[in-house]
Amino acid sequence: MRSMQERASSENARHDELLQARYGSQGRPASVFVNPTIETLLAHKSVRSFLAEPLPEGAIETMVAAAQSAATSSNLHQWSVVAVTDPQVKAKVWALAAGSSGSNNQFIGQAPVILLWIADISRNCEIAAAEGGDLVVPDYLDAFVMATVDAALAAQNAAVAAESMGLGYCFIGAARNNARELADLLGLPRLSYVTFGLVVGRPDNSKPATVRPRPAQEVVLHFNHYDGKQARESLAGYEPEFSKFREAAGLPKMTWRESVVNSMKFSYMDGREKLRDTVIARGFLLR
Amino acid sequence: MRSMQERASSENARHDELLQARYGSQGRPASVFVNPTIETLLAHKSVRSFLAEPLPEGAIETMVAAAQSAATSSNLHQWSVVAVTDPQVKAKVWALAAGSSGSNNQFIGQAPVILLWIADISRNCEIAAAEGGDLVVPDYLDAFVMATVDAALAAQNAAVAAESMGLGYCFIGAARNNARELADLLGLPRLSYVTFGLVVGRPDNSKPATVRPRPAQEVVLHFNHYDGKQARESLAGYEPEFSKFREAAGLPKMTWRESVVNSMKFSYMDGREKLRDTVIARGFLLR
Repeated sequence: MRSMQERASSENARHDELLQARYGSQGRPASVFVNPTIETLLAHKSVRSFLAEPLPEGAIETMVAAAQSAATSSNLHQWSVVAVTDPQVKAKVWALAAGSSGSNNQFIGQAPVILLWIADISRNCEIAAAEGGDLVVPDYLDAFVMATVDAALAAQNAAVAAESMGLGYCFIGAARNNARELADLLGLPRLSYVTFGLVVGRPDNSKPATVRPRPAQEVVLHFNHYDGKQARESLAGYEPEFSKFREAAGLPKMTWRESVVNSMKFSYMDGREKLRDTVIARGFLLR
Repeated sequence: MRSMQERASSENARHDELLQARYGSQGRPASVFVNPTIETLLAHKSVRSFLAEPLPEGAIETMVAAAQSAATSSNLHQWSVVAVTDPQVKAKVWALAAGSSGSNNQFIGQAPVILLWIADISRNCEIAAAEGGDLVVPDYLDAFVMATVDAALAAQNAAVAAESMGLGYCFIGAARNNARELADLLGLPRLSYVTFGLVVGRPDNSKPATVRPRPAQEVVLHFNHYDGKQARESLAGYEPEFSKFREAAGLPKMTWRESVVNSMKFSYMDGREKLRDTVIARGFLLR
């Protein structure tokens, strides 16, 4: 058994390693708490290369128990999740999320499951209608936000649970590329939409994922009032970390600012420009 | 030291306890994985009674490191967080989230901090504009969803980190009641809005929080295709658990279906009916 001192020093080394991977040589917090849960959170890496093996038994149920344990607005449970494991359905999900090149997110085909997270007001609307209640709130943008946030909080808990079990995951915003067709494929009821996907599987460690660096905390964290100047200035330190990451990952040269410029172009959306029409057709009036 | 067998049996007892609290006598998963991270997730309880003590040093930085470690759409970091610790600013935040009764969410005043999570496209729009890029994507609903989801994934990681440190938290959707005034108070830039708040502090254990039961997994979890019938039928088992919870918590009698009916009435929104006008005025065109 290790002494308290040895343990404290090995914990400090672990803090340093985790913060180094996340912030590189940018400013970083002087001290953070570390426990097994926080280690899991800080060590997150998105996995885009999976083994074809099925998930361990009970893994989906564990993720869903974690997801249901997340907070939900007014205890209304306005989300659902469709676990797509059938290879034929999964191939169709992939085709709808493959982008204009037709080849993005290939790992949806590799991995044993994609969880599609649904902002879902349909169940509760049905109940309120059956009880003769007024259905006013669902017409408003706030209801759309409430259900979208519910789905995201639930999904993040599921993702954390997955990673803590040694599984890998990647979120798929491209599940909104063809939101209407995907809703039809899954047979979603009105007043629900696929908010995003989450691919889960055993990581293929022959192509290991790495922790992506983030900007310094000062870029996103403000105290009492938003300080745009501080955020802008602190961003300067991010480019070198971003470049180092891309180089180590064998990705083509590109600055983060260039990636930001690209993300604002119409071509970035790959069909997601239709989202408003889709959700309105599905009953969210966004008033 | 305990034998492997003793440990396995005490772990099983812990699984049972966690699942019992979450599902009561409804159907529940036959087996779930449990490790310290999953225990933290499954044991979540929203805390609404806090000690006035400040957070331990490093707690906010730990939560933000966890938040930044969450996935972010296309590595764009389109969220921010404003930690309100100044009692005068916090009193104003509370007043804006206090609802029409003027007395909801009093614990915002008690707790040492409320973190306001911001869906924030402003930083990246500024960069793209400075680089002479097209600003097309921010006009679309998808950009609003992308930033809203980014903020929620980040916040959930922060919340999990907080609970793992022994802190308590409660999400505050009512931070959207007066979204325009709150944005002004915090000095938010255009193309950002407060998505929700997260109150964090040391729980006041003289008024202990309890785990809220959830519906059976079959209500939210579907395989390959959405099955509304199964969801509806599985909901029946939830009412008794909901009633038991309310009785044990000393809350007035109300069925869950009644709470759903109430959540669909105009009065539920407490000002959130203005959210669309606010976010459009703040530059999100929701096209």
